[in-house]
Formats: sequence, structure tokens, C-alpha cells
Amino acid sequence: MIEFLNFIPLNLKAMETSTKSLISIEKSKTSKIDKVDFDNLAFGSVFTDHMLVCDYKNGAWENPKIVPYGPITLDPSAKIFHYGQSIFEGMKAYKDIEEAIWLFRPLDNHKRLNISAKRMAIPEIPENYFMEGLSALITLDEKWIPKKAGSSLYIRPFIFASGQGFHASPANEYKFMICLAPSGSYFSGKVKVLIEETYSRSANGGVGYAKAGGNYAGQFYPTQLAIEKGYNQVIWTDDNTHEYIEEAGAMNIFIRINDTLITGPTSDRILDGITRKSIIEIAKDENIKVEVRKITVTEVVEAAKNGSLKEMFGAGTAAVISPISTFGHKGTDYDLPELQESYATRLKNRITDIQYNRAEDKFGWRYKL
Amino acid sequence: MIEFLNFIPLNLKAMETSTKSLISIEKSKTSKIDKVDFDNLAFGSVFTDHMLVCDYKNGAWENPKIVPYGPITLDPSAKIFHYGQSIFEGMKAYKDIEEAIWLFRPLDNHKRLNISAKRMAIPEIPENYFMEGLSALITLDEKWIPKKAGSSLYIRPFIFASGQGFHASPANEYKFMICLAPSGSYFSGKVKVLIEETYSRSANGGVGYAKAGGNYAGQFYPTQLAIEKGYNQVIWTDDNTHEYIEEAGAMNIFIRINDTLITGPTSDRILDGITRKSIIEIAKDENIKVEVRKITVTEVVEAAKNGSLKEMFGAGTAAVISPISTFGHKGTDYDLPELQESYATRLKNRITDIQYNRAEDKFGWRYKL
Ligand SMILES: Cc1ncc(COP(=O)(O)O)c(C=O)c1O
Ligand SMILES: Cc1ncc(COP(=O)(O)O)c(C=O)c1O
Repeated sequence: MIEFLNFIPLNLKAMETSTKSLISIEKSKTSKIDKVDFDNLAFGSVFTDHMLVCDYKNGAWENPKIVPYGPITLDPSAKIFHYGQSIFEGMKAYKDIEEAIWLFRPLDNHKRLNISAKRMAIPEIPENYFMEGLSALITLDEKWIPKKAGSSLYIRPFIFASGQGFHASPANEYKFMICLAPSGSYFSGKVKVLIEETYSRSANGGVGYAKAGGNYAGQFYPTQLAIEKGYNQVIWTDDNTHEYIEEAGAMNIFIRINDTLITGPTSDRILDGITRKSIIEIAKDENIKVEVRKITVTEVVEAAKNGSLKEMFGAGTAAVISPISTFGHKGTDYDLPELQESYATRLKNRITDIQYNRAEDKFGWRYKL
Repeated sequence: MIEFLNFIPLNLKAMETSTKSLISIEKSKTSKIDKVDFDNLAFGSVFTDHMLVCDYKNGAWENPKIVPYGPITLDPSAKIFHYGQSIFEGMKAYKDIEEAIWLFRPLDNHKRLNISAKRMAIPEIPENYFMEGLSALITLDEKWIPKKAGSSLYIRPFIFASGQGFHASPANEYKFMICLAPSGSYFSGKVKVLIEETYSRSANGGVGYAKAGGNYAGQFYPTQLAIEKGYNQVIWTDDNTHEYIEEAGAMNIFIRINDTLITGPTSDRILDGITRKSIIEIAKDENIKVEVRKITVTEVVEAAKNGSLKEMFGAGTAAVISPISTFGHKGTDYDLPELQESYATRLKNRITDIQYNRAEDKFGWRYKL
């Protein structure tokens, strides 16, 4: 309810005054939309006609501009190229059958962007820049929101250091941008994962809880090694013992043992996923027993051996819920059972029904544009 | 001696054929050099007239081009902006009194760049692209090499993901670039450091040993906090216990207890610094007792208390040797003594004498351009 109350004034504000005054819009003369095959969209590889750009200079964010989507120009000494000072968010816009446009908990993405910003010494973005920017850009490019089931408009807000110089210190200039990519589903089918025993994605006291660019590049090589061994993804474990299960690639992870759904607590090593926390609430609402506690590899292997391991799945905005068919650990593969009535399917249906406005939203998560 | 033998054929190759055939050169019509105050150079904030650009496309590095220094243009979905897939090197070119140009162990920078590349799932750069690129670019902009003592031409080779898309996977296109920045010294004077107890820069199994962009952005916020408390830099400790001393900001660290010089062993959390390994060899050559072993905070605090702690200094290309005057730990500041004859000064003199061709180079580290 609090979230419900929250969004009304913001939205009104955006419509009444600020979109016009805060954000300038330069429309594209032509549209690329006719060239796009909306039935065969990959994930995040086609972009809409416009983008939002907002510069941080002289200690302040300038007014955001919506301009035709196109290349950006930077000095080769811009710190993004050298010191990885960048953060991002991942969101989606959904169209219901009446063509109304919905976001899902966007204020939480704004909050998390600023949590990431702080850790990466990037200036925080005011809430109205973020919310009104989203609103104005998506409204302008709303024809790009795919209607096909499973498809959506993927939204990528990001900030990077555009300020110059080879001194390893925070930049004095930044760019906040939003780009939109009509997208099909992220993964197709169930995934086979490898529990990581050598590499790790984050340190205690590190930046793992931030959506910082470098966290992702660091995962590419270990993931490639896993792919070469026949897996699709890596299950990240803690860097010290490789005994605690932390994340599934770029998703949070859920494990079902008997009828209990377990997920690790967030920490400074783990991203506080919006899908994860929504799934926890929906599962409780479904009277599923949920435990938020540390879960060890040993426990999962034992459960696989004695048959009490029923499901494992990743949860995140891009893939929503990504069921795991098999996990590998120390050279052995463990298959998960094929269930008639899985939590994964039930929870995915509930959350996507809320997202696409096909069902009641008792949590107040939906945000109408 | 092996390194000495190594560089002759490479150098000859560069001069005779390949610079002409491998690398194309488009000269700048004007020079900015007259606008530069070479007596008051900051570190890495003025750039020479040219830069090297080499694109990776369709599975191969294209021929490097030297072009006028200027902005680069990228799609907003280039992976560098989102996933921090970037690596770099830091080197210097020195001019001796006869105007000959020298590099310092450049083949080691090439090797390390490729070690970083592998960890960040970036395609490796062939040795001749790197060496001939350096040689052609520095020769072209050789007037920019400062002659003032302590100044040098800072060289920044770097590679970043220019390929597009929001899928969190390695890019299919990259840019390898080299930029040159005539620079004054990095730090001025002795530094006051804080031994870090909360934050950390790298994980076991992580990317700390790579010169990956994200490692640096992750240090900015903890360093800012230290600066607010009156320190200049952070001493990084292991992420698990904060008991092992690992690096000094973006430098390796040396600690002198009585007459023994101690530095930690490299690991996957620590950058294998070229200055560090050169200092180890020079110190041995000076008959200084050197120990490469883990060193704990407790041991250093004890040594500070009982007076056996004589020196601490950072070592790296940018600052060469950066002596520490004070370290803070758990709310207490420990001052280091002012020595008449410090190892820091002795070792810095020896290494810079080799770098600037003021003394014999018995190790074969100098590389003539
Ligand atoms: C590392 C990581 N974990 C988890 C998630 C899931 O977060 P969310 O549900 O907010 O998309 C993401 C982002 O998608 C992520 O990048
Ligand atoms: C994290 C880190 N440690 C140590 C060093 C020192 O390495 P080198 O002596 O090769 O410059 C650097 C680079 O300067 C660095 O970035």
C-alpha cells in the first residue's frame, strides 16, 4: 500500500509539469521500427528510436535530454575506458491487452542504482530525473513494446565516467543514459549449471552488491570455461570456502528442498535482486515455506543424493525465473526431477501475471506509465 | 642477458619492415605541443598529438593505425559501458641526455596485458602489434617526452569491449589503443596511509591480479573515505581476515623491518608489478636481505611499536617508489622514522638511473627505441 500511495504523486508530477520542463526532447526524423522482426527478437540487441542522455558536469546533473538513438563520442582518456567506473540497472516495460504500459517496482531500481553509485564513487541520480526520464522515453517509444508473450521492452539505465585523465581517481564528469531494447526471452529452456570451485565473482567488502560493470566482465572467463565443459551457467559460491551458494550467473538463486524454498541472505557480495524479493513475498503469499538463510553446497549435494532436492532456479529481471535441470559439482552431474507442479512455474506465472497486468496486484508493485 | 638478446631482433624487425607494413600512420596537421607547460605537468592529463587504434573484428585484430589524437565514437550499447570488459597497462618512456628514448621491460607489460586479457575474456594482442605499435607511436611523438627530472612520457595501452548488446557475455569486437601523456610525478611527498579493515579490492579466484578497469573503480569509494579521515591512500588487506597486507592503493607494497625488506608474494588477488619485481632484484644486488612472504598487520603494528619498523613504501610505474610517512590502524596512527639513508631513496635512485640510462643496466631491462 505504501508503494501504491507513493507512485501517484510522482506520476502526476511527471505528467503535469516536469516532463515538459525538466526533459527536452529531440525527436528522430525517421523510425527503424519497420525493419524489426518482433516475432524473432533476441535479448537486448535491437534498440528503439530514442535514448535519454543526462550529463554530470561542474558538480551537478544537467537536464536530461531525449535524442535520437545514436553513437556517443568520448575522449580516449575518459575514465570509463580505464577504471571501470560504471553502473547499470535492468528493468522491463510491459503492455497489457488494453495497451496500457506498466513498469515493475521502478522505484526500487532507482534506489539500487544509487546504492551502486555510492559504492562506485559516482554521483547519485535524483529520483525525478530517473522516473521522469523513464516515463518520457518509454512513452515516446511505446510502439516498440512487444506484445508477444514472453517478450518485453528491456530498459537499460546506466551511468559511466566520461571525465578524463589517467589518474586513478573518480571522474569529474559522468553520463546517465537510458536505452530501450525490445527483447525476446533471455534463456530458452532449462539450464545446466556448474557450481564454481575455483573462481569467484565478489569479495567480502567488495563491490558484489553493486550493479557495477566490472562484476560482469569478471564472470565471463569462468562462465566460458563452464560452457566448454557443457554447462550454461556458473553457480557462484563464496570466495573463501566455495561452500556457500550465492548467485546463479547474473541471477539470484532459489533452491527447493522437499517443500521448502530456500535462498541465501543478501550481503555485500550479493546483488539484492528485485525479482528475488518479489518471489519471496509471492511464495509466502502462496503458503510456500520460505527460508532466507545460508545454504551450503554440501547440503544441496546431500539433498540431490537423497531425493529431497526438488528444484533449483535463478531469478532476475531478464530471465524472470530460469529453472535448472542439472548441476555439476566436483566432476559429478546431478539431475533435478521433472515435476508436474513446480514452484518455478507457479511463481513465474504469478509474477508475470502481475507484471503484464493479467492479475490483481495485491502488493502494489505495478507502476502505470 | 636473455632479455638483452630478446630485444635486438624485435627492434630490428620493427625498424626494417613491419612498422611500415603493419601500422598505417595518419599524421596530425597541427601540433598542440606549444600549448603545453612542460614545467608544470600533472599526471596523465595532457595527451600527445597521436594515438594508436587497433580494432578486433570478425575474430581477428586488424592492422593498427596511428591517427591524430581525438574522440572515439561508440554505440551506447557497447559492452564497455555496461559490463566493464576492459584492461590496461601503464608504462613510461624516458629520454636520456643524448635524446635516446628508452622503455623499461616493455615485453613484461605485453605479457601482463595478455594475462589480464585472458581473465577478462578479451582476445590477446600479438607481441608485434604491441611492440611495433609502441615504437611507431612514441617515435612519432618523441618531442613530447619531457626532459625534466622526475617527468616522463606516461604510456597507456588499453583494450576495451566495443562490441554491442545487453546480453551479459563477452563482446565480439574490441579496441586496442595506446595513448601518451607527458607527466609530472604522481605523488608529491610522503604519503599517509590507512590499513583497510572493512573494504577490499579483490577476491580469491577473482580478478585482482588482472589490470582490469573494475578493480580501480572499486577502490575509489574506500579511498575517498580514507581521504576524508586525513589519509592519502588505502593499504589493501585480504578480504577474509584483513590481516594480510596486500597492496598500497594501485602499487605493490614493501616493508622494511630492521634491515630486512619484505613484500608479500603475488597471488590471484595481487597485481604482479614490474616495479616490485625489479626492486626485489635490485635490493638483492645491493645485498639487502629480501623476504617474499606473507606479512600480517599484527607484525607491522608490533614492529612499529618496538621500533623495528623502519620503512614502508609503495612501488609502481606511475610513482616509482612512494614512501609512507604514517600508517593508521584501528584508530591509531603510527609514524615511521625519518631515515638518513633509506632503502626507498637508494632503490629509487638505482631503478630510475637504469630507466633514464644514467647507469649500467646489468639486468638487461632497458629497451632502446
Ligand atoms: C548479479 C545479479 N544478481 C541478481 C540479479 C537479479 O536482480 P533483479 O531481480 O533486480 O533483476 C541481477 C540482475 O538482473 C544481477 O545482475
Ligand atoms: C593494483 C596495482 N598494483 C601494483 C601496480 C604496480 O605495477 P607496475 O610496477 O608494473 O606498474 C599497479 C600498476 O601500476 C597496480 O595497478
